[in-house]
Amino acid sequence: MNVNVEAQAIEAKKASKQLMILSKEEKNEALLHLADVLEREYESILQANEKDLANGREQGFTDAFMDRLSLSKERVQDFAQGLRDVAELEDPTGQVLTDWTLENGLQVEKVTVPLGVIGMIYEARPNVTVDATGLALKSGNAIVLKGGSSAIHSNEAIVKVIHKGLEETKMPKEAVQFIASTDRAATNELFTMKEHIDVLIPRGGGRLIQAVVENATVPVLETGVGNCHIYIDEQADVEKALNILINAKTDRPAVCNAAETLVVHKSWLKEHQDALIAALKEHNIAVHGDEHIVDTIPGAVPAGEEDWANEYLSTDLAVKAVDNLTDAIAHIETYGTKHSEAIVTEDQKAADHFFALVDAAALYHNASTRFTDGGALGFGAEIGISTQKLHARGPMGLPALTTIKFLMKGNGQIR
Amino acid sequence: MNVNVEAQAIEAKKASKQLMILSKEEKNEALLHLADVLEREYESILQANEKDLANGREQGFTDAFMDRLSLSKERVQDFAQGLRDVAELEDPTGQVLTDWTLENGLQVEKVTVPLGVIGMIYEARPNVTVDATGLALKSGNAIVLKGGSSAIHSNEAIVKVIHKGLEETKMPKEAVQFIASTDRAATNELFTMKEHIDVLIPRGGGRLIQAVVENATVPVLETGVGNCHIYIDEQADVEKALNILINAKTDRPAVCNAAETLVVHKSWLKEHQDALIAALKEHNIAVHGDEHIVDTIPGAVPAGEEDWANEYLSTDLAVKAVDNLTDAIAHIETYGTKHSEAIVTEDQKAADHFFALVDAAALYHNASTRFTDGGALGFGAEIGISTQKLHARGPMGLPALTTIKFLMKGNGQIR
Repeated sequence: MNVNVEAQAIEAKKASKQLMILSKEEKNEALLHLADVLEREYESILQANEKDLANGREQGFTDAFMDRLSLSKERVQDFAQGLRDVAELEDPTGQVLTDWTLENGLQVEKVTVPLGVIGMIYEARPNVTVDATGLALKSGNAIVLKGGSSAIHSNEAIVKVIHKGLEETKMPKEAVQFIASTDRAATNELFTMKEHIDVLIPRGGGRLIQAVVENATVPVLETGVGNCHIYIDEQADVEKALNILINAKTDRPAVCNAAETLVVHKSWLKEHQDALIAALKEHNIAVHGDEHIVDTIPGAVPAGEEDWANEYLSTDLAVKAVDNLTDAIAHIETYGTKHSEAIVTEDQKAADHFFALVDAAALYHNASTRFTDGGALGFGAEIGISTQKLHARGPMGLPALTTIKFLMKGNGQIR
Repeated sequence: MNVNVEAQAIEAKKASKQLMILSKEEKNEALLHLADVLEREYESILQANEKDLANGREQGFTDAFMDRLSLSKERVQDFAQGLRDVAELEDPTGQVLTDWTLENGLQVEKVTVPLGVIGMIYEARPNVTVDATGLALKSGNAIVLKGGSSAIHSNEAIVKVIHKGLEETKMPKEAVQFIASTDRAATNELFTMKEHIDVLIPRGGGRLIQAVVENATVPVLETGVGNCHIYIDEQADVEKALNILINAKTDRPAVCNAAETLVVHKSWLKEHQDALIAALKEHNIAVHGDEHIVDTIPGAVPAGEEDWANEYLSTDLAVKAVDNLTDAIAHIETYGTKHSEAIVTEDQKAADHFFALVDAAALYHNASTRFTDGGALGFGAEIGISTQKLHARGPMGLPALTTIKFLMKGNGQIR
């Protein structure tokens, strides 16, 4: 497929200017109309999806992967409902964050505005095509979509329907650009297109995210690798500790806010080892432990350096025994990805110390790390979970897709 | 000079953990004590400054450059006063931005926290050494300072005094690291030290900033190149227009919020050309114009592509005549640096359109661009003026040196 990525990015930039002068109502009407059109035209999407599925079967993709790739009438209806939900949300742009008047009468307003053009680089799931488009348009941004090759026919069909729908609204269809290429070079072109793209958002595995972070000169909103720890402190309540550990590890092992490592205080372990062993066994959790743990937990295999750093995304669990809170924090500092970290303790001072010193987007005292999620926190929409410190950290809602302008209104003021 | 940049960055990271558990009062006491010690020890700083000045004379630096480099007892007192002023400011950390409780009782707090370690890369002015240190410490951050080689003796002497002062406070002196090297390789090492440095802030000329933005994998707070435009619209009041133009161009031509280009509507120009010509002449402004301007303004030389993009930082002015507002906006879009842009007009619709469509940190209606400045806007302190869109845009106060943490307080909540 022959694509001109730069030409598409320029089109998106042009369209983004038109989006900036649409009213909230016009944007919402367009989203609602898109929802209707998606539902109406679902068959063309399912036909294209068949091609991707056939190709996936040929390539021997896993069942889990095929499930993520697979669309149905109901899933397309979910996409449409997602757009309707986004339309309902508060518009993140045009909000006056602060305003004041200087002594000379100059009025200053700090107002939220769209970023401009969002470059979305993502992997298998075709739902990202609709979700990201909805969030971008709601926040007044144009979007350049570069999805994974395994879903290219589905994505292309979805965008075709979106374009058809947009033609019947006040939004320019050029605001949604789809890079119809399976060529990695097309992705790489996006990395340096600073003039036309305002931010890149990679969504997918750690390798994809690293490639974007390391090579892009366009600013990046880094999302989601989570090597999350549960630290069971000396003074941990045993029931809370085990509930939280098992929930964080097994509720959805493949998501980024699942726990990957248990750090456990040796005194607590000594007292409660039978209960811990029973809980791990009951939930078929495979333990990779340090020497102390291998001696304590039957069936535990020795953990290597790679275990401490690994995001297993399975029911494997690395387990580290420590002598005190300081060593627990040091371990998390060394191997954590600054995503979500939990302490289980009845000792408020230990919890306070953990909160002050552990450097991560979300810290938990006596709760599961699984709550680091826009949905669970009530954000209404989530673009991803930022593990960076600048601009946005933790679950990102619509405000992460905005920047600000200072608007100065005068009557001739000079300095 | 033999320096180990990585070892210093690691020391800074370690010290940043100690800063995180200091109280607001302890931080302020340290700043006030530093101010006293700087005033007391000014002579050692002036002696070191003499070396830099002698070296500068030898190298034939310009008078303006020598002036920026030169210290005096009074200037050191100003540094001290600057630290006292920063101590007075509201602490940007520990602020609960929002808090809520989920239905299951999990309490969520979004709290501001220090970034960690700030890498400051700057040029001649030794005052940055004190200013940046004060802002970093106030916001609970450690700082790694890499100043320009022309001021290295002054900077080193200042940091020596700061270290001496910090030893008498609760702040670890390792929180302030000075890279005592004139070697560019030492600067480049900072670019990729993601594990130890949380943000790089370049302050200086466009070339320095570009080098950092292009080569750093550490996140950057991009500051300050300003190719600012004054657009005089068809309906501009002549007195306001000329006052604003002359102020923005001549008040301080060397700063980033000074105007570099006049974009002028041809109808306005036709009517008011005599007044404009007189004003430009009175203020010795050298005009580089397009064809229409060369035909209209006596003495104007033809402008080339480089003039439209140039940040003159002098009393040179590029002048472009346009047929309408749309062309004016297109010119600014092509050549602007997204810093500060002004429209002079009595037509409110034109001003609204300009505000909606021009993409810049600060937009002005009937006022000089010179107000894009933390001091002028009443921020109390300014780390720089951001021309990027993520994290911080426009004049940056202390909050730009913070990030957030989500703190979750539970009693056993799981999903």
